[in-house]
Amino acid sequence: MLGIVVIGIGTGNPDHMTVEAIGALNAADLVLIPRKGAAKGDLADLRRAICERFLENPATRIVEFDMPVRDTSGGYRAGVEVWHAAISARYRHLLDGETGTAALLVWGDPSLYDSTLRILDLLAAGGLAFTRRVVPGITSLQVLAARHAIPLNHIGEPVAITTGRQLATGGATGTTTAVMLDGDCAFRGIDPEGVEIFWGAYLGMENEILISGPLADVGDAIVAARAEARAANGWIMDTYLLRCAGESASASASHSASVPGSPSRSQPAE
Amino acid sequence: MLGIVVIGIGTGNPDHMTVEAIGALNAADLVLIPRKGAAKGDLADLRRAICERFLENPATRIVEFDMPVRDTSGGYRAGVEVWHAAISARYRHLLDGETGTAALLVWGDPSLYDSTLRILDLLAAGGLAFTRRVVPGITSLQVLAARHAIPLNHIGEPVAITTGRQLATGGATGTTTAVMLDGDCAFRGIDPEGVEIFWGAYLGMENEILISGPLADVGDAIVAARAEARAANGWIMDTYLLRCAGESASASASHSASVPGSPSRSQPAE
Repeated sequence: MLGIVVIGIGTGNPDHMTVEAIGALNAADLVLIPRKGAAKGDLADLRRAICERFLENPATRIVEFDMPVRDTSGGYRAGVEVWHAAISARYRHLLDGETGTAALLVWGDPSLYDSTLRILDLLAAGGLAFTRRVVPGITSLQVLAARHAIPLNHIGEPVAITTGRQLATGGATGTTTAVMLDGDCAFRGIDPEGVEIFWGAYLGMENEILISGPLADVGDAIVAARAEARAANGWIMDTYLLRCAGESASASASHSASVPGSPSRSQPAE
Repeated sequence: MLGIVVIGIGTGNPDHMTVEAIGALNAADLVLIPRKGAAKGDLADLRRAICERFLENPATRIVEFDMPVRDTSGGYRAGVEVWHAAISARYRHLLDGETGTAALLVWGDPSLYDSTLRILDLLAAGGLAFTRRVVPGITSLQVLAARHAIPLNHIGEPVAITTGRQLATGGATGTTTAVMLDGDCAFRGIDPEGVEIFWGAYLGMENEILISGPLADVGDAIVAARAEARAANGWIMDTYLLRCAGESASASASHSASVPGSPSRSQPAE
């Protein structure tokens, strides 16, 4: 029976691969690599680089395919559903007649703001019989916290993970809000009083950018850096953490935002 | 100058180690392994097993030390602060005079409900000069989602990560709440109507237990399984996700909770 293994590959640094992920890759009979067009070339390139570096099983076939393009002309939700159905149909075509294990390599972690598991639900609902296995991977939020050397949470306090869209409509909740999928710098819409931001783009990659500090002071610098990097690279992946003051001995007090009002911007340390 | 590298090692399965974590381990001059007493023996054993399997640098010294014990007789926050100060003093003693790189191996990910980065702040505030680097690791929440083969979030919706203590006082927020550090089954205190729970203990380990289903139906089974496993093993680490109905095609509809009212309980698939 066909098995599908969904492997989290981390955020662009092949060193994010876990031993479990490497083992699952090598146990696969087939690895599907989506091509998403030239603008996102880095992501297909990352998958190819991971296979080149870690795949040692000569029997494993690598199959590249063109990912259906999302129609963003209609509503957000409707566009996403049509897109997922199209991807599911593509997978069905690619996996028709397969009886071994097929691997899908997912940016970050398959559990967080990734559609692959929902698309597998559509595939199953459409009548394809398969088993599924998920291998967790390092998410951009974890790399963000690691590179800024901060914890996500205040002691014993909750953390909200949300999207730019949600932040724009509902604002930040609680003392710590992590924001993903924000193409529009939604942090500009919230009251910056007492809020620190920890921002990162291309996390884990060679062109990683980190900016942190009081939102009131560094917000504009982030907007500018983001626009500049996006223009230079043709694409951007970024994420950030908003943290309200609330803990006397926070990491930031002795770390990157030690000079209030002075944006700290750093390149990767190694 | 002394460097401290804080390495996330995942949740008990050495295969959770990333290539970056393995590299950081081998680049360390010193690895500190805390002993927390016989009841938590598995955790020191895990760190030893990770060193035995992945550490190939013959120059790296492994130093075991007794972790200070937390005084739980006073208030929660006060007890934690005293405990952190004691751990910081212990690190200072162990690292006095070191000029290379010392590695601390953190269960899960250093950014989520872990005190190591705060203890390093205390160490720096106390006058020890060092650089710090953080290597992200797989968290129990990611393993939980992976083993249940579900996404943490509904499409475009936020996820709240919180503690048992917060859940008991504030309840669940939003459609998805992930709960960590819950020694008291705080899910018993919330209205189970329309709520699904995805629970896991010893995630990634040989004795992993998974239970999922409508909270009203499986809550008691989880309480019983947790008490039984804790008695049998002498300790337990568990976490869970509470999810309100809200998406028509959720993974659970075609997966583990396919029979409403019937708790699905499984052992690790591999």
